[in-house]
Amino acid sequence: MIRRLSLVGLGLLGGSVAKAARAEGLADEIVAVGRDRARLEPALRDGVVDRISTHLEEGVAGSDFCLLATPVATLTALLPAVWPALPDDTVLTDVGSTKAAIVSVAEALGRTRPLAFVGSHPMAGSEKSGYGVSRRDLFQRATVIITPTERTDSHAVKRVGAFWEAMGARLVTLDPITHDRATAAISHLPHLVADALVDAVVRMDPRFFEVAGRGFKDTTRIAASDARVWREIFQENRAGLAEALGAFRAALDELERLLAAGDAAAIEAALDRIRRTREGV
Amino acid sequence: MIRRLSLVGLGLLGGSVAKAARAEGLADEIVAVGRDRARLEPALRDGVVDRISTHLEEGVAGSDFCLLATPVATLTALLPAVWPALPDDTVLTDVGSTKAAIVSVAEALGRTRPLAFVGSHPMAGSEKSGYGVSRRDLFQRATVIITPTERTDSHAVKRVGAFWEAMGARLVTLDPITHDRATAAISHLPHLVADALVDAVVRMDPRFFEVAGRGFKDTTRIAASDARVWREIFQENRAGLAEALGAFRAALDELERLLAAGDAAAIEAALDRIRRTREGV
Repeated sequence: MIRRLSLVGLGLLGGSVAKAARAEGLADEIVAVGRDRARLEPALRDGVVDRISTHLEEGVAGSDFCLLATPVATLTALLPAVWPALPDDTVLTDVGSTKAAIVSVAEALGRTRPLAFVGSHPMAGSEKSGYGVSRRDLFQRATVIITPTERTDSHAVKRVGAFWEAMGARLVTLDPITHDRATAAISHLPHLVADALVDAVVRMDPRFFEVAGRGFKDTTRIAASDARVWREIFQENRAGLAEALGAFRAALDELERLLAAGDAAAIEAALDRIRRTREGV
Repeated sequence: MIRRLSLVGLGLLGGSVAKAARAEGLADEIVAVGRDRARLEPALRDGVVDRISTHLEEGVAGSDFCLLATPVATLTALLPAVWPALPDDTVLTDVGSTKAAIVSVAEALGRTRPLAFVGSHPMAGSEKSGYGVSRRDLFQRATVIITPTERTDSHAVKRVGAFWEAMGARLVTLDPITHDRATAAISHLPHLVADALVDAVVRMDPRFFEVAGRGFKDTTRIAASDARVWREIFQENRAGLAEALGAFRAALDELERLLAAGDAAAIEAALDRIRRTREGV
């Protein structure tokens, strides 16, 4: 049970956490912190949060559970400001799509002043953004990855895990580096590839979009996402993305080589192996 | 109005045509033709077709509208056998995913014996196949591309167009070569890329599938499709796919170059241009 939950950032993810925490009665008091008062006011009017603040230190003061839900590039800059403003016994977590950078900043800060930080990454985005599209059931059956290290307080790991599970999420634990490699493979690479698929049509003939069916729309849906959010993710996870791009190019080259060789049985064997793998996901 | 509709092949597409034609009352009599009697019997039991035949020439004989709905590689081989078995005034069409090859075979046959052939391609597949997954509403709001040439009988073009529209489809007309380039860009390339995305995860670490979210599942859904069907499509549309792969590699290289250069504004401008393009689809 949380006495005072503070949320920094009230977009799709922060807003959905506020709505789910309110609906499930996870916190006595919910405080939303953001730079723009007008963007926080709808949640106050909705009764989703009890208090709003545009002053970071004042907003998070006295909270025993603090969640950072700003865009990924802001998180590492925010951490040194939030850190000293929180009480000793606070549990701090975030929703960033990359984890190696923020965890290493948190561990550096922890060497000067111990504070329980656990990295979180709810795999529950949308191509849309903002409080207006947030929903209390966003985390139902969603996967949330938490990224404790050997230095992370085990009590805090339990509290953060229980927090996401109380909102309906399925928990997966990975170390920060493995997290960044895994999300590069199953999220950041597919995103970049979807962007390139859309751009390939533009390069061939934009009129071809006219005949796009459900397959194309599903495959490229994520290319309609916010440009700034994804520029930041691509840049933050440069290393993971480079490895995933290498694996993808090798896979595509191999398929192209099989097609060029024209061996029907070999092509079908490769496609069928991939089909079975995909069906197992 | 069709007196006798013959369907060669009764899988997802042929079965859905039979169900939609029956539901909309488009034909007095529907005959299904296939190699395996056991696979045709469910449609006869369902009352979806009136007669079944495993003999190609006998099955299509006397039909005034004939639709070929076999896998794409079989179509060009089937055409010379069906051609002489059909009455002079029959309208013949197909559902093949590639069009240049079949249209050129049909035009070669037409030089020896005139017969009205119009290529069709309903953009309404599924990663599943077979009569069991066919549905009468498969073509509702689906795009069907028809590919007449300057040599195609205009009365037949109208009848084939009206046939698809009666089943709820939206009609697009393209010449066969443009069709193959367009479907390479918006269907065959995304399919091959989805295959490579799945294989990239296998190459990095198959355990990463554990954290796959909706984005990955949507992007790679088509990689769960039948291996033989897609091997045939990739091979039949070799030329279109090669052009689309070239455009895709150029687009991906450009995005990677922008990311490597690290110019945030330029990356966001590119991603935002793609986002707006995708939203317009």
